[in-house]
Amino acid sequence: MFDIERIRADTPAAEGKVFLASAGASLMPAPVVRAMRDYLDLEVELGGYGAYDREQMRLAQAYASAARLIGSLPQEIAFMESATAAWQMAFYSMSFEEGDVVLTSEAEYGANFVALLQLRQRRGIEIRVVPSDAAGEIDLDALHGMISARVKLICLTWIPTNGGLVNPAAEVGKIARAHGIAYLLDACQALGQMPVDVQALQCDMLTATGRKFLRGPRGTGFLYVRSGFMSQLEPHTIDHFSAPWLERNRYGLRDGARRYETWESNYVARAGLGVALDYAAEIGMVAIQERCVALAARLRSGLKALPAATGCDLGRNPSAIVSFTLEGKSAEQVVELAANEGITIGVTLPSGTRLDAERRGLPPLVRASPHYFNTEHEIDILLDFLQSIKAGGP
Amino acid sequence: MFDIERIRADTPAAEGKVFLASAGASLMPAPVVRAMRDYLDLEVELGGYGAYDREQMRLAQAYASAARLIGSLPQEIAFMESATAAWQMAFYSMSFEEGDVVLTSEAEYGANFVALLQLRQRRGIEIRVVPSDAAGEIDLDALHGMISARVKLICLTWIPTNGGLVNPAAEVGKIARAHGIAYLLDACQALGQMPVDVQALQCDMLTATGRKFLRGPRGTGFLYVRSGFMSQLEPHTIDHFSAPWLERNRYGLRDGARRYETWESNYVARAGLGVALDYAAEIGMVAIQERCVALAARLRSGLKALPAATGCDLGRNPSAIVSFTLEGKSAEQVVELAANEGITIGVTLPSGTRLDAERRGLPPLVRASPHYFNTEHEIDILLDFLQSIKAGGP
Repeated sequence: MFDIERIRADTPAAEGKVFLASAGASLMPAPVVRAMRDYLDLEVELGGYGAYDREQMRLAQAYASAARLIGSLPQEIAFMESATAAWQMAFYSMSFEEGDVVLTSEAEYGANFVALLQLRQRRGIEIRVVPSDAAGEIDLDALHGMISARVKLICLTWIPTNGGLVNPAAEVGKIARAHGIAYLLDACQALGQMPVDVQALQCDMLTATGRKFLRGPRGTGFLYVRSGFMSQLEPHTIDHFSAPWLERNRYGLRDGARRYETWESNYVARAGLGVALDYAAEIGMVAIQERCVALAARLRSGLKALPAATGCDLGRNPSAIVSFTLEGKSAEQVVELAANEGITIGVTLPSGTRLDAERRGLPPLVRASPHYFNTEHEIDILLDFLQSIKAGGP
Repeated sequence: MFDIERIRADTPAAEGKVFLASAGASLMPAPVVRAMRDYLDLEVELGGYGAYDREQMRLAQAYASAARLIGSLPQEIAFMESATAAWQMAFYSMSFEEGDVVLTSEAEYGANFVALLQLRQRRGIEIRVVPSDAAGEIDLDALHGMISARVKLICLTWIPTNGGLVNPAAEVGKIARAHGIAYLLDACQALGQMPVDVQALQCDMLTATGRKFLRGPRGTGFLYVRSGFMSQLEPHTIDHFSAPWLERNRYGLRDGARRYETWESNYVARAGLGVALDYAAEIGMVAIQERCVALAARLRSGLKALPAATGCDLGRNPSAIVSFTLEGKSAEQVVELAANEGITIGVTLPSGTRLDAERRGLPPLVRASPHYFNTEHEIDILLDFLQSIKAGGP
């Protein structure tokens, strides 16, 4: 099933360089790109609406594809322009009242945390940060102790942007469900690198992006909302698609999660996203995860052997996001020197995960994120490069 | 300057069919498509972030291009995923209090009106609909009489989706400015078919789409917010781009209108939009308007000569959106029969502009929207086709 030759052939740019930045925006496989080009060609020929009319059945299939990948129903999926747009739709649609408590984790993503701060100021919600345990994961006992009748929402970044950590999302879901508390899970870095099953996670809302480990287009993402939760979550913005104008002074909400969408969308990107969802499913998420974990482990183990490198990852079973510093060079310098050698890696800034970064006193970190299309040899090229810097290289 | 040969050469699909649906989604000119294909190629080669790094200067130019087209400053432009997303960002960011009055027009677009209804229910705003004058335009005297200290916002669809009408947007702006009332202008059908000058319009917020008369990609649009108005309009949703996370419990708003954007975007589409803005400017909006008006006038005059056709357009100086019914055939039937003859036209439904449709008792209408790339001959082909139906055709 896992055919690295075919996968490499589908990723021609991976031959010319060492691409280790799928946690930023990955390389799209050829079938995804082909779907986008074909759709664009159709728009050129028929106009944007004609192309949609011709392709709408295929586009509608993407709801089933997303649902299959996360174990939901198709009608629990809303396609959005990004994971952020999806997260905002979920969070801002919660009917908060003054004094409602939102629990979150120390590794929460900046995009989410500023939104919490905004509603603290605007609606008087209270933000309480659940501490981390010794491994850096959200502390489940502490979370348990912080549950009260005032807790309205738990929001959690499953895999933070800054290295290693995989939060125990299903265990958090178990606690949330047991207490009837709404649970919003940010799966932006999880979808595409590991199996995602909303039934096991017991989340009410889950958000995901296309461009990272799923290898889809930029400007895509989706929101899952559990059917049983939808009636509590009226979209905080509506248009005539999400809420048809039924009478002069009355609108109705569309059935299913498409009530969180707008009428207009970028269907070139949507066509690519649909293929990306199927492409991942076809390879198989278990196989993908195994390979991601193995490559990341190889990298971490190699880093340990480099005296100048300091690994900064948290968590018991770390993800494919590997973060580190290199003595004597800033993260930006390392990334730039790597780029000169044809190696694509990235930087993760403290402001992206400020609570965690401040707690651990983190500077900007180098971030390398291997994916299943990478090879062991590429990991070794990165390690050799890092070794060469340490040896007083460029 | 206006070179129809070159324009037709840039629009190859216009040769194979009669495309008269630019009010839906137009045909993109070749340079727009080329920019999208080139940008996608770059993403394939470098990944989504690498492509952005390489092209960011060119992408940034699009702010100046949009600003030039509407007479604003570049820092007053936020790119959005659609005109609806832009309008929602503006409207929902208003700090309404219970009892605040919003004035709107009878031809207001459904997407906007359901949002007004939602905030009527949620925040207790009061919606007052300004009546139309004998020509069907928003009645300026009536508007004047409805101004009071409670009026917080005037929102107006400049050119409604359903035919002919061009509301006196600048005169409304004059009244709004004189009374210090916020003014949100929906220019979705205006941008790209006629000159737009926010200084003359005196609007505080203006929303536009890429895909219609501007001939840009689907999934694009922008929001203009007047610099002097921005401090009153905190974005109702934020992320770490629009509102950098400065300290543990504090965010700041980004300077300029990019505070209304999110970090992630679809840059394939954005690359196309930038070229579409320049393409329109290069042809010249005055020349474009002249040609649009002339072609629409030819169509209206031809319709008058068809006894079975009834024109349904409103307004003193009608736009390039031509709406009509044909005796004995539903609008859907006409559109389908036209498609069989290689003529692309559309239907406009009563639910899109319910207040106006109910007032005039309108059924679904046929909508034909010529653009500058169309020819007089194509108008005549449509008229001949309509004549053939009338004569007991297919």
